[in-house]
Amino acid sequence: MRSACIISIGNELLTGETVDTNTSWLCSELLSCGIPTVAVITVGDEVGPIVDAFRQAAERAEVVLATGGLGPTGDDLTRVALAAFLDVDLQFRQDLFEGINQLFTRMGREMPYINRVQAMLPAGARALPNSMGTAPGMAVEHAGRFIVCMPGVPAEMKRMFHEQLKDHLRQLAGGQGVAASKLMCYGTGESAIATMLGDRMERGRNPLVNTTADVGVVTVHIVAAGENWPDAERLVEEERGELCKLLGDIVYGFDGQTLAEVAGSLLLARGRTLAVAESCTGGLLGKLITDVPGSSDYFRSGWVTYSNEAKVRDLDVDPEILQRDGAVSEAVACAMAEGARKRAGTEYALAITGIAGPGGGSEAKPAGLVYVALAAAQYCRCQQFIFHGDRQSVRRRSALAALDMLRLQLVN
Amino acid sequence: MRSACIISIGNELLTGETVDTNTSWLCSELLSCGIPTVAVITVGDEVGPIVDAFRQAAERAEVVLATGGLGPTGDDLTRVALAAFLDVDLQFRQDLFEGINQLFTRMGREMPYINRVQAMLPAGARALPNSMGTAPGMAVEHAGRFIVCMPGVPAEMKRMFHEQLKDHLRQLAGGQGVAASKLMCYGTGESAIATMLGDRMERGRNPLVNTTADVGVVTVHIVAAGENWPDAERLVEEERGELCKLLGDIVYGFDGQTLAEVAGSLLLARGRTLAVAESCTGGLLGKLITDVPGSSDYFRSGWVTYSNEAKVRDLDVDPEILQRDGAVSEAVACAMAEGARKRAGTEYALAITGIAGPGGGSEAKPAGLVYVALAAAQYCRCQQFIFHGDRQSVRRRSALAALDMLRLQLVN
Repeated sequence: MRSACIISIGNELLTGETVDTNTSWLCSELLSCGIPTVAVITVGDEVGPIVDAFRQAAERAEVVLATGGLGPTGDDLTRVALAAFLDVDLQFRQDLFEGINQLFTRMGREMPYINRVQAMLPAGARALPNSMGTAPGMAVEHAGRFIVCMPGVPAEMKRMFHEQLKDHLRQLAGGQGVAASKLMCYGTGESAIATMLGDRMERGRNPLVNTTADVGVVTVHIVAAGENWPDAERLVEEERGELCKLLGDIVYGFDGQTLAEVAGSLLLARGRTLAVAESCTGGLLGKLITDVPGSSDYFRSGWVTYSNEAKVRDLDVDPEILQRDGAVSEAVACAMAEGARKRAGTEYALAITGIAGPGGGSEAKPAGLVYVALAAAQYCRCQQFIFHGDRQSVRRRSALAALDMLRLQLVN
Repeated sequence: MRSACIISIGNELLTGETVDTNTSWLCSELLSCGIPTVAVITVGDEVGPIVDAFRQAAERAEVVLATGGLGPTGDDLTRVALAAFLDVDLQFRQDLFEGINQLFTRMGREMPYINRVQAMLPAGARALPNSMGTAPGMAVEHAGRFIVCMPGVPAEMKRMFHEQLKDHLRQLAGGQGVAASKLMCYGTGESAIATMLGDRMERGRNPLVNTTADVGVVTVHIVAAGENWPDAERLVEEERGELCKLLGDIVYGFDGQTLAEVAGSLLLARGRTLAVAESCTGGLLGKLITDVPGSSDYFRSGWVTYSNEAKVRDLDVDPEILQRDGAVSEAVACAMAEGARKRAGTEYALAITGIAGPGGGSEAKPAGLVYVALAAAQYCRCQQFIFHGDRQSVRRRSALAALDMLRLQLVN
């Protein structure tokens, strides 16, 4: 299998000013062409490091894609570095010069002199026209490597890739098809999931299965290679079925779905409505639910009862229960959920009360202690959690726990 | 000047599933310690490429920071690769083992056997405790290089960096002084700010001034180099004073402060309290306010009145106004704010009603139309906005507009 190495060029990537989103986009596109990326090298706007990066990339992979450093200013050095790496001259190309000139004319501006440098190309390289900007890309075959330089502006780069590279890269990959899918899991840690999947996560297996974790949600990635794309897709689907059997109802969705999306579509499908009552999450649960377009079809109201008075006044929580058990307790979580359900007139209500931290904890009730309740017409269920991590992560885990409680209720 | 090389480890970074946000965060933190990053190498979960990356990074820079690959599963290979690069054994450390075990006990779960590997450390390396997860970090001095491995989970990595590395890195940067600061701005776009700053944003100037933008908030970065750290710090402070004069009250804070933090501390300083009423933001405004630890000192209650009935029932909005002007109107925004203020018994209340989109808009009231109101004892002010962008960005801009309205009221 042919592989790729990406070179990202630009000082702004090394000062933290810019998050490099080009690379993950390119990785994903390359994979769909059947060419996995084996490494990414990010360097600043200096000739030496860029030449080194070309050298190292060409050692690692058959396809080298560089982005950035094709602008007209003094710190755009990719074309100089590519010429140095290839050990050839930079040649002025009249046809490119005229193209750039015409672009400025169409914009009703005169071409600044510095843009002339964008008409220079290493000898032997082919220009890749840029339909959105002044910087042409460059492509060259060198010592069995296919080397491409594209602009760093994401829209220009993406258009150039689709219009001028994708087909050629698919051909290079030689019919090889790659397909991918993700299982979204909640309720079990990454290591327990790895144990459940056992040798299906073996390295080098096809389909390849691995996991990533992000504050409560574990994603199981499936990538399969086949003779062609339908073949790879079929492998992924079979694997997905097997993994779902092994993991059961901890799989809440697919391909980046959120718990709020899944719980929301279950509510919609069953014609049910929802209200929420939040203390420590302060609005986060409502925010996650209403992140989903169309959530007004099933979501009615939320209360952020941060103070005890608000819990009594807005949700009819009995002051005696607050006095007896404290605001962070099973009894109060249930009273909040029931109060919200009755006030809003919905079928379901979720409530969260807890100590998000860092302050506010005690020995009996430490920071991270959270009660999540789900009220319906016939019952109110409550679960106690002790979450670790900082304030943001305790709050996020609490909101996800509430959504998952609702999801499990709706699927069972 | 000492420099750094970052190694990002993980298959998910090479398949396009995950955008690497750790790296830009680390670059920015390193720069503020006085250590510029010269390169980033991204590799997958394979021992050979990770060892190569350590080798190349150590050739390029005095500080090598790796993230990722410290989990418990078979594809977490950073500790094996570090041992191979250092040419030492991986040693089982009873103290680390007990720490990981205790973490599982506190979570009320049994430690899966595979987590045992997280107690292994290359001989000679120091463990960096992880206060948020099971994977300890590792630090080692080797051939004049300071090499560190941290978890890939952003929250764990950031905490570890701040708690255990930042001070040491500042010391390593030694006499060489680089200081940095940020002005947080709201209410004006990036290009207008660039025009206001004029030649202070010239390249190569010391202090160096540039801007980045993120959904409504523009950050002005100041980086100064000096003989030593106090010298650089003095340059930054002088520049900061000058820029604040040029920018006026669009500067809401410094160094990553959020609008919610600044508005919250103004409320606290003046002994005032706040309630919120949200429609299209669905809880986001409350969430942003309560992101701030200690916000219960000034934040009392929130209402997410997503439906018209909820607006009438919970906030005493006059049904006739709803009928006459519609839910997305100045009159309803003010009625929501006044209702929330009276019900909660606070000095101030903020209200938001609008059309977040993508659906729900009309010619007269397009998606992106939002009304934000601030109610106090003597008045209620309302502003109309038409925000562009997707649902998330309209919601975020709406919540920030509300917080900024409160901030400007409190400072003036």
